Amino acid sequence: MFQEYDVIVVGAGHAGCEAAAAAATMGSSVLLITMNMHTIAQMSCNPAMGGVAKGQIVREIDALGGQSGIVSDKTMIQFRMLNLSKGPAMWSPRCQSDRMMFAHEWRSILENNPNVDFWQDTVKEILLDGNQVKGVKTSLGIEIKSKSVVLTNGTFLNGLIHIGEKNFGGGRTGEKAATGITEQLITLGFEAGRMKTGTPPRVDGRSLDYSKMEEQPGDENPAKFSYKDTEKLAKQRSCWITYTNNEVHEILRTGFEKSPMFSGRIKGLGPRYCPSVEDKINRFADKDRHQIFVEPEGWDTVEVYVNGFSTSLPEDVQYAALKKIPGFENVKMFRPGYAIEYDYFPPTQLKSTLETHRIKNLFFAGQINGTTGYEEAACQGLMAGINAHRNVNSLAPFVLKRSEAYIGVLIDDLINKGTEEPYRMFTSRAEYRTLLRQDNADIRLTEKGFEIGLADQERLDNVRKKVQQVEEIITEFNGHKLYPEEINEALEESGSAPIREKTSVTQLLKRPQVSIDKISKASPVISSLLEKYGEDTIKQAEIHVKYDSYIEKEKLLVEKMNRLEDLNIIENFNYDVVTSLSFEGREKLKRTRPSTIGQASRISGVSPSDISVLMLFIGR
Amino acid sequence: MFQEYDVIVVGAGHAGCEAAAAAATMGSSVLLITMNMHTIAQMSCNPAMGGVAKGQIVREIDALGGQSGIVSDKTMIQFRMLNLSKGPAMWSPRCQSDRMMFAHEWRSILENNPNVDFWQDTVKEILLDGNQVKGVKTSLGIEIKSKSVVLTNGTFLNGLIHIGEKNFGGGRTGEKAATGITEQLITLGFEAGRMKTGTPPRVDGRSLDYSKMEEQPGDENPAKFSYKDTEKLAKQRSCWITYTNNEVHEILRTGFEKSPMFSGRIKGLGPRYCPSVEDKINRFADKDRHQIFVEPEGWDTVEVYVNGFSTSLPEDVQYAALKKIPGFENVKMFRPGYAIEYDYFPPTQLKSTLETHRIKNLFFAGQINGTTGYEEAACQGLMAGINAHRNVNSLAPFVLKRSEAYIGVLIDDLINKGTEEPYRMFTSRAEYRTLLRQDNADIRLTEKGFEIGLADQERLDNVRKKVQQVEEIITEFNGHKLYPEEINEALEESGSAPIREKTSVTQLLKRPQVSIDKISKASPVISSLLEKYGEDTIKQAEIHVKYDSYIEKEKLLVEKMNRLEDLNIIENFNYDVVTSLSFEGREKLKRTRPSTIGQASRISGVSPSDISVLMLFIGR
Repeated sequence: MFQEYDVIVVGAGHAGCEAAAAAATMGSSVLLITMNMHTIAQMSCNPAMGGVAKGQIVREIDALGGQSGIVSDKTMIQFRMLNLSKGPAMWSPRCQSDRMMFAHEWRSILENNPNVDFWQDTVKEILLDGNQVKGVKTSLGIEIKSKSVVLTNGTFLNGLIHIGEKNFGGGRTGEKAATGITEQLITLGFEAGRMKTGTPPRVDGRSLDYSKMEEQPGDENPAKFSYKDTEKLAKQRSCWITYTNNEVHEILRTGFEKSPMFSGRIKGLGPRYCPSVEDKINRFADKDRHQIFVEPEGWDTVEVYVNGFSTSLPEDVQYAALKKIPGFENVKMFRPGYAIEYDYFPPTQLKSTLETHRIKNLFFAGQINGTTGYEEAACQGLMAGINAHRNVNSLAPFVLKRSEAYIGVLIDDLINKGTEEPYRMFTSRAEYRTLLRQDNADIRLTEKGFEIGLADQERLDNVRKKVQQVEEIITEFNGHKLYPEEINEALEESGSAPIREKTSVTQLLKRPQVSIDKISKASPVISSLLEKYGEDTIKQAEIHVKYDSYIEKEKLLVEKMNRLEDLNIIENFNYDVVTSLSFEGREKLKRTRPSTIGQASRISGVSPSDISVLMLFIGR
Repeated sequence: MFQEYDVIVVGAGHAGCEAAAAAATMGSSVLLITMNMHTIAQMSCNPAMGGVAKGQIVREIDALGGQSGIVSDKTMIQFRMLNLSKGPAMWSPRCQSDRMMFAHEWRSILENNPNVDFWQDTVKEILLDGNQVKGVKTSLGIEIKSKSVVLTNGTFLNGLIHIGEKNFGGGRTGEKAATGITEQLITLGFEAGRMKTGTPPRVDGRSLDYSKMEEQPGDENPAKFSYKDTEKLAKQRSCWITYTNNEVHEILRTGFEKSPMFSGRIKGLGPRYCPSVEDKINRFADKDRHQIFVEPEGWDTVEVYVNGFSTSLPEDVQYAALKKIPGFENVKMFRPGYAIEYDYFPPTQLKSTLETHRIKNLFFAGQINGTTGYEEAACQGLMAGINAHRNVNSLAPFVLKRSEAYIGVLIDDLINKGTEEPYRMFTSRAEYRTLLRQDNADIRLTEKGFEIGLADQERLDNVRKKVQQVEEIITEFNGHKLYPEEINEALEESGSAPIREKTSVTQLLKRPQVSIDKISKASPVISSLLEKYGEDTIKQAEIHVKYDSYIEKEKLLVEKMNRLEDLNIIENFNYDVVTSLSFEGREKLKRTRPSTIGQASRISGVSPSDISVLMLFIGR
C-alpha cells in the first residue's frame, strides 16, 4: 500500500512539520503520519511565536531554510520586538498568531511539497531490523517501511489530562492519547520519564471589559521573522494586560486541596519558568499580583487566551477566581485550563543529531525530549529532519555548535545535561549570546543551510548581499567624519559629550548613547546611506560597529573552545581502558557518548581532570 | 459557573449549529456544547451541500432565516443546478464546499451571535425534574441548567468505527465517541437502535491523473442558495468523473470475507441510497461499472474526496482496488474509508416539533433521529431550535405542513412512519412537489420565518417585492400579444407550431417547448421586462404561467388534505375510550400520539376506517 519512505515523521506539530518539510525539501521521500489531518500544526497552547531567546530560534530556523518563520509572518496578527531597551543580543521578535490560519498555512506548505505524503493514523510501534529502524506499525495494523523515523509525539504519549480531582486520557483536550510506543521503547532499553505541562482557560472575548485593562498594541513599525520577502503587517490586533490580586489568590487557594499538582496526583515535573498560576501564588506568596496577558486567538474570532493563568485547579475555582480579575467580572469560559502529564525520554539518550544512540535512524524531536515551547520543538524537528535525510544518504551529521546558534545550545544542553523538567530556552543558556543575535541568524546560518540543500539560492543571495553591504557601510562609517557643528546638537540631545574635532561615524557610534538614527538626522551623508541600503542593513552595520569589541572578545572565546570541539571522540570509544578517569566521569561518558572533547566537558559529573586525562589519551 | 440557559444545544454539526443560531436569533440564551471547539461544523463526509431534494431543503432553511444557505454560498468552490432538463420541481441546487472555510464561516456566524455561548466538553447525562429537562451534566462533572436541551449527537453516541476486521470506538475518525446519554435515555424508557453509515477514502489529488477522467465544471452562470445578497461565484473548481470496472470489483470482492458489512459484525442498517461500493457491486452484480466523483476538498488543498467509493473493506483492499480506477493508477491515500455504527432513537418517539413525547423540552435533531445527510440534519436542527425557543416562551409549536416544505415532509415522515435505515430526502417523498420548488421557498416560508422572529426584515421585503413583481409580470404576459411575424421563427426553432393570429405571451408560454428566453429574444417588449425585473423574477413568473394548471391542481389536493390537518387531537387524547378502533390502530395511535387527524392518517397501521371512527368521535 505504501512505498518505502526515506523518512517517516510521526506527529504533525511544530517539530513534525519542520522535520517533514526539511527532509522533503532536501530530497527525501517523507510520510507524515498524524492522528487527525484536521489538526496539523495546531498551536496547543498560546497563539504566539517567538519571545525572548525563542524569537532568535525562529530566526535561526528561518535562516537555515525552515518554515516556522514564514508561517509566523503570514499568519501573525501582531508583532513586537521585545527588549529593545537592552543590547541587541537581547532583542527578541515575538508575534501573536491567528491560530486557525497558522495551522492552515503549515498544511498548505506541506501539501505543496511534492515529497511529502500524508497518512492519518496512530503509530503504535517502531519496526526494527536488529538495532536499526525499518518502519512503523499503526493502530490500523498497517506496516509502513522507511529508512528512518522521526518521533515527534508531543504530549500524546500516554497523555493524562488533569482538572482538579478529575483526570482522563488525552493528548490534548478533546483529542485521544497515543499508547504503545513508550512501552515498546522501554522494552528496547530506553529510559522514559513523565513530565507535566499546562494551559490556561480560553474565554469569550465578548464577555471582557477591556476598558479596565492596559492595551498592548503591536510595534508601530512591525518587523517580521523571515529573511525572505514575506510581508510586514499593515494592521494589527492589540493584546491587553491585567492583573490578578489577593482576592483572586484567595479563591485559587480554596482549590489547593483538590489540586492535582499539590496533592501529588501529578507525578511529572512541570516547566519551572512557565508555572501555573497556583504555583506562582504558592511559590511567591508575598507577591500580591501577577500579570495576565489577554491574547486574541486570531483576526476574527472572539476566543481569547488568558496567558499567565495556566491552571489545573477545579474548573469552578478557575471560574470564580477569573471573575475577580479586573475586566473579567462577567467572563464566560469556553473551556477550563488543565494540566497534562505525558511520557518523555531523557535526551541524554540522543546523539547531537537527535538520533538515538540505541536505535539507528530513529530520531526524537520536541516534547518527547523533555522540552517545552513551540520554537524549541520546531528547531529540533528541523535538525532531526535534516539529519534523518543525511543519515539515509550516508552524509555527515549536521550539527550546530553552541557558538553558532541557540539551536546548537539547546541540543548540546539536552544531550549532555539532560533535563528533569521541561527545558525552555533562555538567552542566559548561551555563553556567546552577543554572537547569537536575532539580526544575524542569516549571516550565521544561511550558508550552512544552503550547503546542505535546505536554504534556497534566494536566501543565499540575500545574505551575501547583506554581508557585502554591511562591509560597504562600515567602510563609509570609518571614512566619513562629522564636524562638531554638524553633530554636537544631536550628541547633546543623546546625552553624549560634544566633540571638538572632526570625528568618524564609527567613533561616534561606539558611544553607547549615540544611535545611527540620531546621526542620520544630523548628517545628510548618513541619511542618504540609510536611504540607499535600507534600515535593516544600516542597523546591522551599526551593531557591528557599536559592539565590535564584545563581538571580537566572544569570537576569541569561541576559538579557544572550538579547539576542544574539534577534538573528536570516536563513536565506540572504550572508556574502560582510560583507567585514570573518575568513576562518575566514566559512567557519565559511557552513557552520553560525547562526540567531541568539548561536548564531554559539558557533561555534568565529568570533571576538568577527567577532560585532561581524556585529552592526553586521545592526543596519543 | 454558568447562568441558566434557555436552550442548551449538544453537538455542533449541521443540526447543532442551526439549532443554536435559530434559538439565539429569536432571543433565547443558548449554550452550544461541543467536544472540540476546533471541529465546529465539520463536514464529516463529502464536501458538498445540496443536491436533489436536499438543495430544496437548504433553500427552505434559508427562506426561514437559517444559516446553511449563507454559509454554503460563502464557502462554495463550485455550483451546479441539477436536473435543469426536467421540470422546475426537480431543479436542485448543489455546491462543492471548501471544507475548512465552511467550518470557519459557521463558527464565525455563531461567535457573532451575542446570544450564543460556547463550552467545550462532553455531555454525559440529561438533568431532569420529573419528566421535564432542567439541564445537562458533562464529563467534567459540571451541571449546567437550562430550560430546554437539543441533542444533536450525530454519529458520536457509542460510535464504533469499522475498517475490515478492525473496529474501534470513535465519533469520527481521529475523534472520540460519546457515552452515557443512550444508556440514560434507555432507563428513561426510550427505545434506541443502531444505524450505520460510511465514508470513502480521502486521497492525494497530486497523485491522480485527471487526463483520464471527465471534467465536471460548475455552471457557466452559477446561481446560489441564499435569498439574501450573498455573492455569486466568480471562479470555480471542477470535479472529475471516472468509473470503477470489473477489475476494481474483483479486487473489492477479495475483501468481502473480511467485510464487517457482510460478516454481520455491523448490526446497524446503512443508508440504502448511499450504499458502500461493496454494497453496490454485491447488489448490482450485473453492472460492470459505477460512477466515481472526484471532489476537491477546497480551494487550495490537495485533499480529494472519492465520492461513490464509500467502503469499510480492509484498507489494503481499498487501496488495491482504487489503483485500478482510471486516473488512480498512482493514487496515494490520506486515510481509508470506514463504516461507523452509532445509536439512534426511532423518531416515532417525537412530536412534530421534534420534542420528545417522553421528556418535556428535550429535543432531538439530526442523525440521532435516524436520518442521513447534512441538509436533513440542518433543517431538523433549525426546527428543533425554533421550537425549543417557542416552548421556553410558552408559544405555540411551529410546524410546517407537508404541503409547505420538504422540511414538513421530512419531519412528518419521521415521526409517523419512523425509519429503520438512515432516512434521506427525495423529491418522490413529497406528494406536492410541484409546490415545493427550490425557486419559491422564500414565497412559501419567509413570511412564516419573519413572524416567528427568525427571518429578518430584509428577507421579508425581498420576498414581498418578488411576489408583487411576479404579479406585475404575469399581468404583462397576459396583456401583451405577439404577432405571428414577430414570434413564428422562434416557435419554429423551439419545435412548436406557428401561430396564425396575435397570441398572448401567457398562451405561448403554456406550450411546453416555449421558454421565456426564446420569446424575449424575439420580442423587444419582453426583453425589456427581463432587463427591468431580472432573470430570477422573470423565470419565477414563467414557472407560474407554464405550470399554472399543475400548481392549481396540487393546491386543491392540499386544501382537501388540510381539512384533515386542521382537525386537532388533544395531546392526552384517550384512545382507549374509542372502542371501535382496530387493535393495531389504537396501539400505533397511542405510541405516535398524532396531533391532527391528518397526521393520524399517515401512521402505518392506522386504517382509513380508524380515521373515520376518530373523525366521528372528535366531531362530537
